[in-house]
Amino acid sequence: IASKLPHVGTTIFTTMSRLAAETGALNLSQGFPDFDGPPALLEAVGRHVLAGHNQYAPMIGLPALREQVGLKIQRLYGRILDIEQEITITPGATQGIFCAIQALVRAGDEVIVFDPCYDSYEPSVQLSGGHCVHVPLQPPEFAMDWQRVREAITPRTRLIILNSPHNPSGAVLSPTDLDQLAALIRDRDIYLLSDEVYEHLVFDGQQHASVLCHDELYHRAFVISSFGKTCHVTGWKTGYVVAPPALSEELRKIHQYVSFAGVTPLQWALAEFMAAHPEHVTELPGFYQQKRDLFCQQLAHSRFKFVPTAGTYFQIADYSAICPDLPDLEMAFWLTREQGVACIPVSVFYQRPPADLRLVRFCFAKREDTLRQAAERLCRV
Amino acid sequence: IASKLPHVGTTIFTTMSRLAAETGALNLSQGFPDFDGPPALLEAVGRHVLAGHNQYAPMIGLPALREQVGLKIQRLYGRILDIEQEITITPGATQGIFCAIQALVRAGDEVIVFDPCYDSYEPSVQLSGGHCVHVPLQPPEFAMDWQRVREAITPRTRLIILNSPHNPSGAVLSPTDLDQLAALIRDRDIYLLSDEVYEHLVFDGQQHASVLCHDELYHRAFVISSFGKTCHVTGWKTGYVVAPPALSEELRKIHQYVSFAGVTPLQWALAEFMAAHPEHVTELPGFYQQKRDLFCQQLAHSRFKFVPTAGTYFQIADYSAICPDLPDLEMAFWLTREQGVACIPVSVFYQRPPADLRLVRFCFAKREDTLRQAAERLCRV
Ligand SMILES: CSCCC(=O)C(=O)O
Ligand SMILES: CSCCC(=O)C(=O)O
Repeated sequence: IASKLPHVGTTIFTTMSRLAAETGALNLSQGFPDFDGPPALLEAVGRHVLAGHNQYAPMIGLPALREQVGLKIQRLYGRILDIEQEITITPGATQGIFCAIQALVRAGDEVIVFDPCYDSYEPSVQLSGGHCVHVPLQPPEFAMDWQRVREAITPRTRLIILNSPHNPSGAVLSPTDLDQLAALIRDRDIYLLSDEVYEHLVFDGQQHASVLCHDELYHRAFVISSFGKTCHVTGWKTGYVVAPPALSEELRKIHQYVSFAGVTPLQWALAEFMAAHPEHVTELPGFYQQKRDLFCQQLAHSRFKFVPTAGTYFQIADYSAICPDLPDLEMAFWLTREQGVACIPVSVFYQRPPADLRLVRFCFAKREDTLRQAAERLCRV
Repeated sequence: IASKLPHVGTTIFTTMSRLAAETGALNLSQGFPDFDGPPALLEAVGRHVLAGHNQYAPMIGLPALREQVGLKIQRLYGRILDIEQEITITPGATQGIFCAIQALVRAGDEVIVFDPCYDSYEPSVQLSGGHCVHVPLQPPEFAMDWQRVREAITPRTRLIILNSPHNPSGAVLSPTDLDQLAALIRDRDIYLLSDEVYEHLVFDGQQHASVLCHDELYHRAFVISSFGKTCHVTGWKTGYVVAPPALSEELRKIHQYVSFAGVTPLQWALAEFMAAHPEHVTELPGFYQQKRDLFCQQLAHSRFKFVPTAGTYFQIADYSAICPDLPDLEMAFWLTREQGVACIPVSVFYQRPPADLRLVRFCFAKREDTLRQAAERLCRV
């Protein structure tokens, strides 16, 4: 059987998590916490299952959960949404991304993505018959170069995939970035997919510049977020897509045949938790900043070079002072196998990684003792 | 925005369930139980959530759950599977179907489907760039006509989508059917998608003729099933795909970017339940046959004509003795609004429904009192 995705193997996340499990390394590779979600959230699940909330949820998601999402967005970003027409609960943010791409992209369409980027974008575009045009972000800041975006736009450009806070770099877009983007696409038939799954993980007092705050951009955007990231339950695979009615309508046509609906009892639990604990999302930046600071302080004694991340729960580190000639994939395997700390090589997020790239990504969504132990091991390198 | 699926609206299942909720009608439309899953299964969920099983599951599914699926298949169908290479847990059977189609079908490919059929097949094929060739089943038995299948095969035929037990008709394929199919495609590059989500709902002592029992067919098949249907928890959206290693590999490439993985705590609970209660699946035919018999006996006093269904939890009924000229969509709305029993018009499962079709589908996955009350109302019609 000829492959539809011939260049695709097992994702690096699966590979590294498996290797970490096999070798007993501390797993700072795949992005998930080694601590649990809020007790009130966890406790609610069993209760809703026993209460009989186990049959199909509405295709677009439980009304109570869409309502909570709407309230949160109004509170944080000042946008008032029609929860019947603009919010769709999906089985995970990844699936929201996939469905949004399927809804928009056709054979021959071009999609602009920024390298490095999350690994699902390109295969999702390929499966829609489109192809990706890669615009590089420049290390060490991984800043947007809007001039290069302008040059990448052609009459075939259909979609631009933004991701802020940015995985793997942690870079965040500013309101000025969004204005520049708006000016670029103003007179064109180009849509946006804004992957904002780390929306609540922005540090040092900065505000997340959500596309939801930007009228002109929101008008043509799918905005995607993740309860799994926000509530420390990545294994629940529950996310949502916000989009204007006409875009939501097309998204839902895809969603209803890809999965039909999300998981019912988890939606009940999330709705209840969000209603009772609106402070959860506002406390997240502080919660994760403490982890970032701890990890970075401990790592200050190491030979890794880094700038503390501005957002996400990922910290990129440059190891060129340690082994300047070792490609990052080998470095990641070596750190996992020999030093007991699993991480992700940053080159896997590129179509064509720079040959001299010497960066690995650590996930600091970990307990304090895990972070201390990992940093200790990394300081010995 | 131009639609990728211009002919698609909200599914009939959403429409009818919503109408039933609005009007207070007994909901015998969308296929889900109005009773709950086994207590041991429900109880396990909260326990696994509290035990911290809330982060990403392995992409292909929890080993313990794949093991249980493997054991069940060995017990029931005599096939020994490699659970690392042949079983993939998906967020719902619908998603398994979608991913299998995406893995196989390319622009210009033809896919043979049998009308009436489940509504997700055609849009899934369209999104892959393929198109469906519809071969009708003949009411009232909805039997396969293999001669018509032979005629429908062309050099472009890539996939045939089987569904036994069959939604909406309840018809089941026999081992002879499978042999005939095998002979038809023996020397051709044609694959199978076998949607067996009702595998455990076959009545009157018949055995389910799974493609898993048929060496030659399995060799080129994706076989799909659903924990939601089997365990009375349709809202858990958890299913699986069994396929030979080369096909599983391609399926997983799609699955890992459509959703990455299924929901972790539900997989733990299902694995535990299957290990402790292997009798659950063998008791299902008796459990549902009793419901079918009750519903059909009560309906015997009505003016609906029907043959008791051979499988699934759906009963098709002919209403031509009641209002011979009313199209079935209108009949379904009328039964819901005026008679208080929601059902599904059978024409929605067709690309081109026969003009004289006078059939509606009732779901009998309901408590005894629901079934009695529904039958009582239907007898008054
Ligand atoms: C779905 S596995 C990848 C998790 C993640 O977001 C990351 O590690 O980048
Ligand atoms: C996913 S909603 C449809 C449920 C179902 O299988 C049916 O009613 O046919």
